[in-house]
Amino acid sequence: MIDIKSYVNEQVKIISSKLDSFLKENMPSIVLDAMSYSVSNGGKRIRPILAVEFAKLCDGDIDTAINFGCAVEMIHTYSLIHDDLPCMDNDDMRRGKPSCHIAFGEDNALLAGDALLTEAFGLLASSKNVSDKNIIRAVSFLSSFAGINGMIGGQVLDLQFEKTKPTIDEILKMYSLKTCGLIKAACVLGCLSCNDYDENKIKAAIEYAENLGIAFQIQDDILDIEGDTVSLGKPVGSDEKNDKSTAVKYFGLEKSKELVKEYTDKAVSALNAFNNDTEILTQIAYMLVDRKN
Amino acid sequence: MIDIKSYVNEQVKIISSKLDSFLKENMPSIVLDAMSYSVSNGGKRIRPILAVEFAKLCDGDIDTAINFGCAVEMIHTYSLIHDDLPCMDNDDMRRGKPSCHIAFGEDNALLAGDALLTEAFGLLASSKNVSDKNIIRAVSFLSSFAGINGMIGGQVLDLQFEKTKPTIDEILKMYSLKTCGLIKAACVLGCLSCNDYDENKIKAAIEYAENLGIAFQIQDDILDIEGDTVSLGKPVGSDEKNDKSTAVKYFGLEKSKELVKEYTDKAVSALNAFNNDTEILTQIAYMLVDRKN
Repeated sequence: MIDIKSYVNEQVKIISSKLDSFLKENMPSIVLDAMSYSVSNGGKRIRPILAVEFAKLCDGDIDTAINFGCAVEMIHTYSLIHDDLPCMDNDDMRRGKPSCHIAFGEDNALLAGDALLTEAFGLLASSKNVSDKNIIRAVSFLSSFAGINGMIGGQVLDLQFEKTKPTIDEILKMYSLKTCGLIKAACVLGCLSCNDYDENKIKAAIEYAENLGIAFQIQDDILDIEGDTVSLGKPVGSDEKNDKSTAVKYFGLEKSKELVKEYTDKAVSALNAFNNDTEILTQIAYMLVDRKN
Repeated sequence: MIDIKSYVNEQVKIISSKLDSFLKENMPSIVLDAMSYSVSNGGKRIRPILAVEFAKLCDGDIDTAINFGCAVEMIHTYSLIHDDLPCMDNDDMRRGKPSCHIAFGEDNALLAGDALLTEAFGLLASSKNVSDKNIIRAVSFLSSFAGINGMIGGQVLDLQFEKTKPTIDEILKMYSLKTCGLIKAACVLGCLSCNDYDENKIKAAIEYAENLGIAFQIQDDILDIEGDTVSLGKPVGSDEKNDKSTAVKYFGLEKSKELVKEYTDKAVSALNAFNNDTEILTQIAYMLVDRKN
């Protein structure tokens, strides 16, 4: 059996160094520093790792999957930078360090987010080992999962729920857009690193990502109650304090923990659509449920 | 001789209605309203018009050029929304109307900008009447002209110049990145609507755009001194008030007006690389110099 933690740590190193080298190709400036600061701020790199693992499952091109996964990670990072801004969640800390606008000022943080989003699409377009058709599909999927009908649509719901009390279906819809959006993008883009991708595999990748994303988000809500500040790198109890509508608030802790397991099991079942060995993606799913941060 | 003003007004209508229909395809929300508000806020549509005219010059596909041009316009609009935010220029008015964050709140304005930027790339990828290769080049050019080494790079310099006194070369470099970036993108993407584009034509389009952009920006600086608030839709004298480093401040009004003419002439000369009739692009260049807003 694979030691999943060492394996993932190895992947994190490869991906982080790739991200670093993409950014280094640009003109030095304070905004580039802000981009690097946030990109290298100890993220779990779940999305690029998923892209690479789905590429392996589809016999895709690994360099392409790393490119594609890093593009998703850049979009993930921009969304965190903008989310932390005073006009949004107004969070001073991110992963135990000052958030981007605290370290570089709001103006530079805004531009750093904009630049990461813009460069992510340039990175997709620079891929060399995959068909033009697949690059265009990657641009299309990423724009759609990250845009107004995807992640940003989820953020819109999140803002709206501060004013109106949502139903549990609305909360789950928000999770599906906001949290699952980029996880779906990562898994699908991983499949697109193979020129002979097949639609059923794309569907299975989306199902895995959708269920994993919901499990991941409910686990996040649980950690906000049960976690400790040091492991999380941010204060616990912030959802309660901000009167956030979460699934845990609706279901309670015990039922929420059951749901995390149910969604994770559903994610893992979706992997049956693939012929290759799915052990790593199975273990990654269960590892994410057991995490403390 | 063509009546350039009627011709341009006709084009503006076509483009504005296309932009409108792209946005209408999305899930309704307050952020979508904010996007529509800013996109339909009476812009001159210079960039999409240039994309279409360069497509005509290259015998390209007009529908593709409209798609490409509208993508550039969406990026232009996002940049204005983010530029107006309190942490940037803190402008309450844009084209005679409340700016996006005044009308919809800072959080929604931030997301509206992010969404326009994200959807712009999806729009490029949705083009049907052009080769995959050209769509990928369009993504690549747009990302590069809009990103950290393009428009955003120019905004970084602009912020930096609030603290240090720039030389005139530095000011012109900032104009080249910040103002010319998306004009170059528009002209190049227009050429890419033709599958048999040729590199020399792309170079000529960039030269036209670069010179036109500089002329346009210096004219903007002049209007900030000589214009009137009603035509401009924003207060005059704001550069002076904000102690902005502009070319006009360096050269004075008279020399600046000469420079506008020189750069415009240079832009028009670049059109010699094309065999087709360049009258409209010539007239557009001179029309932009004569504008009052």
